[in-house]
Amino acid sequence: MKIMGIDPGIAIVGYGVLHRQGNRLRAVEYGSIQTEAGLATATRLKQIYDACGELFQKYRPDVVAIEKLFFNRNVTTAFTVGQARGVIMLAAEEAGVPITEYTPLQVKMAVVGYGQAEKRQVQEMVRMLLSLPETPKPDDVADALAIAICEGHSSTWVNRLKQGGWKR
Amino acid sequence: MKIMGIDPGIAIVGYGVLHRQGNRLRAVEYGSIQTEAGLATATRLKQIYDACGELFQKYRPDVVAIEKLFFNRNVTTAFTVGQARGVIMLAAEEAGVPITEYTPLQVKMAVVGYGQAEKRQVQEMVRMLLSLPETPKPDDVADALAIAICEGHSSTWVNRLKQGGWKR
Repeated sequence: MKIMGIDPGIAIVGYGVLHRQGNRLRAVEYGSIQTEAGLATATRLKQIYDACGELFQKYRPDVVAIEKLFFNRNVTTAFTVGQARGVIMLAAEEAGVPITEYTPLQVKMAVVGYGQAEKRQVQEMVRMLLSLPETPKPDDVADALAIAICEGHSSTWVNRLKQGGWKR
Repeated sequence: MKIMGIDPGIAIVGYGVLHRQGNRLRAVEYGSIQTEAGLATATRLKQIYDACGELFQKYRPDVVAIEKLFFNRNVTTAFTVGQARGVIMLAAEEAGVPITEYTPLQVKMAVVGYGQAEKRQVQEMVRMLLSLPETPKPDDVADALAIAICEGHSSTWVNRLKQGGWKR
């Protein structure tokens, strides 16, 4: 099963693709889509939309996981991130990829096991859980992998419930 | 010159098309795109994106005007509206229609001539300025027309500056 995690933004969109086999998660690919600050917002949104469409085409994930709510208290930032998230969700919908959403709390619980975990702890756990040589940069990439891990764990739970026990 | 004003939302997107000839503005068409609350967000975003694409195709506006900043203090609402705004801007970009943005203050100044104007005053002025039999409903439609009027007045101002005086 292939899981893609996405951390949306107008300047940087982080993404990470995981392969899940049983309870094991392996990083297939991760990186970021970046747009130039000098460009018009609509142009940047189209670049993000096109790049996501290409990623979905290339990796054909079974599911795309994305953060549910943006808790940053800055309304302007929430509005801007919302715009990027809108075109990413549209690209997923057009590619026929189901979308799952998790709150930052769920992501922290899944990755660190502690809802008040700091950003650095989450990123260090991402590196360890996926046996990466170093923490992926920029932060948005590690965040995208964290969301994908959250989805990976959640689907495992769902499977466990469905199957009545862990399969190996 | 044809101007389309859009008031974005996930449940209701208001739109209004104006024709501007010299200093006169005439309403060509106005209405709303509505999506069902029970549907997945991605599905609703795709419906909005598709419907906007059709509107741009049908009316071929020379410009699309949309509110610049969402001053609602609710971060969740700003995030949701941002998502809808993102796919609308994408549809405009793909249709090759330039986008102009105005703050709510600019819209009120253009329509009522008073930045602290109430919603009802703006809507009543929209009705009067466009000689409509009644205030368009839902409110989102009147708001979209207000943004289009703002664009209409602004472009007139730009033209006046360019031409060094009003043309009749």
